[in-house]
Amino acid sequence: MKTANGINLTMLCDFYELTMGNGYWKSGMKDRITCFDVFFRENPDDGGFAIAAGLEQIVDYVQHLHFTEEDIAYLRGRGIFDEGFLGWLREFRFHGDIWAVPEGTPIFPGEPVITVRAPAIEAQLLETYMLLEFNHQSLIATKANRVCRAAEGRTVLEFGSRRAQGITAAVTGARAAFIGGCAGTACTVSDQVYGVPAAGTMAHSWVQMFDSEYEAFEAYCRTYPTNAVLLVDTFDTLRSGVPNAIRAFDSVLKPLGIRKCGIRLDSGDMAYLTKCARKMLDEAGWTECTITVSNSLDERLIRDLIRQGARIDSFGVGERLITSRSTPVFGGVYKLCAVEDGEGKLIPKIKISENIGKITNPGFKKVYRLYDGATGKAEADYICLHDETVDDTQPLTICDPQARWKRKTLTDFKAVELLVPIFQGGELVYRLPTLPEIKLRCASQIGTLWPELLRFDNPHVYYVDLSERLMALKDRMLENAGRH
Amino acid sequence: MKTANGINLTMLCDFYELTMGNGYWKSGMKDRITCFDVFFRENPDDGGFAIAAGLEQIVDYVQHLHFTEEDIAYLRGRGIFDEGFLGWLREFRFHGDIWAVPEGTPIFPGEPVITVRAPAIEAQLLETYMLLEFNHQSLIATKANRVCRAAEGRTVLEFGSRRAQGITAAVTGARAAFIGGCAGTACTVSDQVYGVPAAGTMAHSWVQMFDSEYEAFEAYCRTYPTNAVLLVDTFDTLRSGVPNAIRAFDSVLKPLGIRKCGIRLDSGDMAYLTKCARKMLDEAGWTECTITVSNSLDERLIRDLIRQGARIDSFGVGERLITSRSTPVFGGVYKLCAVEDGEGKLIPKIKISENIGKITNPGFKKVYRLYDGATGKAEADYICLHDETVDDTQPLTICDPQARWKRKTLTDFKAVELLVPIFQGGELVYRLPTLPEIKLRCASQIGTLWPELLRFDNPHVYYVDLSERLMALKDRMLENAGRH
Repeated sequence: MKTANGINLTMLCDFYELTMGNGYWKSGMKDRITCFDVFFRENPDDGGFAIAAGLEQIVDYVQHLHFTEEDIAYLRGRGIFDEGFLGWLREFRFHGDIWAVPEGTPIFPGEPVITVRAPAIEAQLLETYMLLEFNHQSLIATKANRVCRAAEGRTVLEFGSRRAQGITAAVTGARAAFIGGCAGTACTVSDQVYGVPAAGTMAHSWVQMFDSEYEAFEAYCRTYPTNAVLLVDTFDTLRSGVPNAIRAFDSVLKPLGIRKCGIRLDSGDMAYLTKCARKMLDEAGWTECTITVSNSLDERLIRDLIRQGARIDSFGVGERLITSRSTPVFGGVYKLCAVEDGEGKLIPKIKISENIGKITNPGFKKVYRLYDGATGKAEADYICLHDETVDDTQPLTICDPQARWKRKTLTDFKAVELLVPIFQGGELVYRLPTLPEIKLRCASQIGTLWPELLRFDNPHVYYVDLSERLMALKDRMLENAGRH
Repeated sequence: MKTANGINLTMLCDFYELTMGNGYWKSGMKDRITCFDVFFRENPDDGGFAIAAGLEQIVDYVQHLHFTEEDIAYLRGRGIFDEGFLGWLREFRFHGDIWAVPEGTPIFPGEPVITVRAPAIEAQLLETYMLLEFNHQSLIATKANRVCRAAEGRTVLEFGSRRAQGITAAVTGARAAFIGGCAGTACTVSDQVYGVPAAGTMAHSWVQMFDSEYEAFEAYCRTYPTNAVLLVDTFDTLRSGVPNAIRAFDSVLKPLGIRKCGIRLDSGDMAYLTKCARKMLDEAGWTECTITVSNSLDERLIRDLIRQGARIDSFGVGERLITSRSTPVFGGVYKLCAVEDGEGKLIPKIKISENIGKITNPGFKKVYRLYDGATGKAEADYICLHDETVDDTQPLTICDPQARWKRKTLTDFKAVELLVPIFQGGELVYRLPTLPEIKLRCASQIGTLWPELLRFDNPHVYYVDLSERLMALKDRMLENAGRH
């Protein structure tokens, strides 16, 4: 096999998951129940929040976890794995529990967004792929949402396949961009597989294939009279492209009574050119002709173009969206938070670090999102131990774990669990929403955020607080940490 | 299907390739021969060169180009494609010619690195996937090479799967990183599929699974006595991790006569900690114990650690390599350079642009690399029309197309064609090198570059010159460009 298209994703794991798995097996610890949390530490682009995505692909992966004979033969060839372990891998499947934040939900640094409770080897093996998928799609959904918010209701199309970092970066990237708010993609297969509407009309090569720009435009209008979007910057946008487009519209579309059409610009000063083009189109009677622009755009440039009064109906956004160029890494991590002892009791675990930001929250936990009763706005997220319950008929005092003197008592509020059960005992217990449902959830959940969180510069820092019991547990474990 | 793993790559195309294809088909232009060049405009990270990669996957893609009945049904459902065109797609395969720079070769902005000569629809359809694969793998190979050069001979391992932008970003990313100089990867399936050596020992979770750090280390040494690399920063590197590692080495490895072992640090001040750890290990007699570090490293940090005298044997490099974080986009483009007219004659084509950097070199071309006879160093690349031949027994005067007063006459030189035939008439005519051969080619070809090109800051700008005939053609076409 010479391609990474169509591999067994079970083998897409860091090699140390397998060396540790073999070690747990040999140490008699393979069935010991462990809890791991996925969380992230910083919002991309210094934003106020991120958007969870990738769960559907993670579910598919967990359901199909298995090692083929070919995989086992490869592992045997490495010469370090116990035959008993390899035999056990042959029967491997996932038997554990998974909770996760539904796709399209705004999420914040430091809170669990996926929690896995499973026998040690099973939980360990999930790490690499689960992080990869969550990190990648959350990154792109978050970026796409920024770009779409900058466009203030104008259409944003994802155009970046050719600059994506590999096959799935393009294909699931378009899916994540749709969740974040894009109306569609240029990537055909993302439409076929996920139903992300794919669109596109012509490249410069179409224009160059003909003896003249006008002939190219005319031929295109004849072929696609109801979707004639003409690329007008191959030679000279204002002196050649727009006039030829108007001529083609006049000669082909007008006799058919078609008023819907479009032009696209892919270079030059977009603010100036679109204002001139709009004027030329309007004067020629093509007031319904839309203007699309595409050329290394991102949320900052789009916001600036709108501020300058550019006349743009839709944006094609490529490399800066599909790679999240300004912040191309989403730093989700997978950390052990509890381990069953010999008697079946879950013992909380903490990861100390010389980098304080890398210290983890111990224990098997859950998260509530607290919505203000009057406004419906999200006020804070509240992390507590899994056996705690928030009763939203009673007042709740929350405090910032980084600044404990900052306390606030909520009285009129609604508490909603953020993570929902996905797998129980290895069985899927979650109805996967459709992609349009996820997109809708994303838009409506962002509607519950205060506008101060949506700013690009210096957004408000959302409160992610710990319950008193969790804070006391963490304090105690940090105190004891020196004694190893 | 809910996953992008295992899609028909033929459908991984921008939708406009298909709308244009249908348009060419309807306009009777589908069999008109076209020439397209892949080239890029800027070196990543403001470096002096890039490294070509991804050709093997492009070859595999071209050989398997086809539309399934399911693909055709999807396209029919879009309601805009001619039935004749859809029927023609059923028989679609590639019949054209492709030339390309072999993988592992240093390449420079502005020169063709892949040239396609094929019937219009076929050439058009290749655009998206060919660019995606070339852009992604060249990006990662180039970045990995920078990181490895910074490490000055120390081992560099690719550790980034969990932060990669999707499945193939991890899997072929590890392949590209290996070409660029990495010794191996953490990604198991990249070993299985491509033979990139996968390695890895333990995560923090291993250490936390046991009642104490020492027990975790001891169990690991017993399981893997010949490859005991212990992660020492779970609690406190110098007060707990390194002393416990030494105790475990002493109690398990020493009695077995094993002297080879290692520790890994994943947080903290690497310069300080590795110097202290080295001293502790040496004093305990573990002079052959290697020190690996990993924690958001890149070429700048590695260079700085070495400058500070950090005692590091190998580097695990994650997110900043696998996403090429500082420059996450490789801007390769695919531009039409010639079209056959009605009489079978190739007519050069040029793309003018208001952005001067976007103007293309017209015509069906080839490229020579000119090596100095005395030193063997690459002096310049020379782009000429495909029917030109450079005779390296005769003096050759080259000039910088951006600064034509700068001329140089080469006398003692060797001219080697940079692009080699890959497909002829749709048939593969190229022996694909093995991955170790590609890696070796990369290292040896970089050896032909002047050290001034290898600098990270303000590298020398390598000469990419045009032949007199090509320059005259381009000048004439630019002169005529106003007349559309």
